[in-house]
Amino acid sequence: MNFCPTCGAPVTLKTPPGDNLPRHVCSSCGAIHYQNPKMVIGCLAEWDDAVLLCRRAIEPRYGLWTLPAGFMEIGETVAQAAVRETLEEANARVELTDLFSMLSVPHVNQVHIFYRARLLDLEFGPGAESLEVQLFPEHDIPWQALAFRTISTTLNHYYSDRKAGSFGFHAGEILPVK
Amino acid sequence: MNFCPTCGAPVTLKTPPGDNLPRHVCSSCGAIHYQNPKMVIGCLAEWDDAVLLCRRAIEPRYGLWTLPAGFMEIGETVAQAAVRETLEEANARVELTDLFSMLSVPHVNQVHIFYRARLLDLEFGPGAESLEVQLFPEHDIPWQALAFRTISTTLNHYYSDRKAGSFGFHAGEILPVK
Repeated sequence: MNFCPTCGAPVTLKTPPGDNLPRHVCSSCGAIHYQNPKMVIGCLAEWDDAVLLCRRAIEPRYGLWTLPAGFMEIGETVAQAAVRETLEEANARVELTDLFSMLSVPHVNQVHIFYRARLLDLEFGPGAESLEVQLFPEHDIPWQALAFRTISTTLNHYYSDRKAGSFGFHAGEILPVK
Repeated sequence: MNFCPTCGAPVTLKTPPGDNLPRHVCSSCGAIHYQNPKMVIGCLAEWDDAVLLCRRAIEPRYGLWTLPAGFMEIGETVAQAAVRETLEEANARVELTDLFSMLSVPHVNQVHIFYRARLLDLEFGPGAESLEVQLFPEHDIPWQALAFRTISTTLNHYYSDRKAGSFGFHAGEILPVK
């Protein structure tokens, strides 16, 4: 951020009185512009013993496989975001089951949140940001071609819980690879 | 948003190609500036059968009671935010137990997330944004003077789970009062 979104004057990075972190502060109107992490919301959609994956048509990780997910929009709930993203990326209709994972990714300022969901029909197909959309049984999951560690972590929890016969909720974090 | 934070030129509200929602787009450099919901993270900190509440020294809801909570910062995890906010608002040291509630508040573009936590000592006290900090047993909770519905909802789930003898995770939403 170089300029004040409110008045257009240059901003400087300084710690406001009573705060303990540097913020972008407008040199003219004095507005303080905070930066906050973003939420990426998606679905782990099941059909029998298969899970719906999308192959990315966009960067980053073009060509790799992901659970349908994307940035939460203002004015919606987490649940609405999960349903919307699944429709946009996979043209798939789902009924949400339970919240399943919440993984902080602090080095990219994101929190990734996934619902488990039941796929309602087989009329899915790639949206604008997907190359292809496919149902994968566990033994066919393309583990070496998954787009993000939040995806592999969520799928690992899913198969582990399924083996144990009971689905939990998984909070955690993905730290930078050393 | 009136001006481009990148280059300072005026922005206009329009739907970019391939998108389906209006965004702030720079009239000069073409940058698209997305707006996303913010996360408010806090703790339900327990000591014996009492819960730690803070009385707000800031607007909105000056003078009303809340669980210690605040906006998640970039570069931190949800768990780190919960511990930090509890230290800042209540000068209280906690050990997190489990993630307890996640409540979307779409009309203010926020998602409120609370951990259950164990208070580690009784050396707490008001931080800069609190008038007072106090442990409340269930029968003393100031239900009529709670600051936000995410607080009353989280406390209701907590006492209900405690009565049932087992703590779950609660995802939901708070909609505008009609």
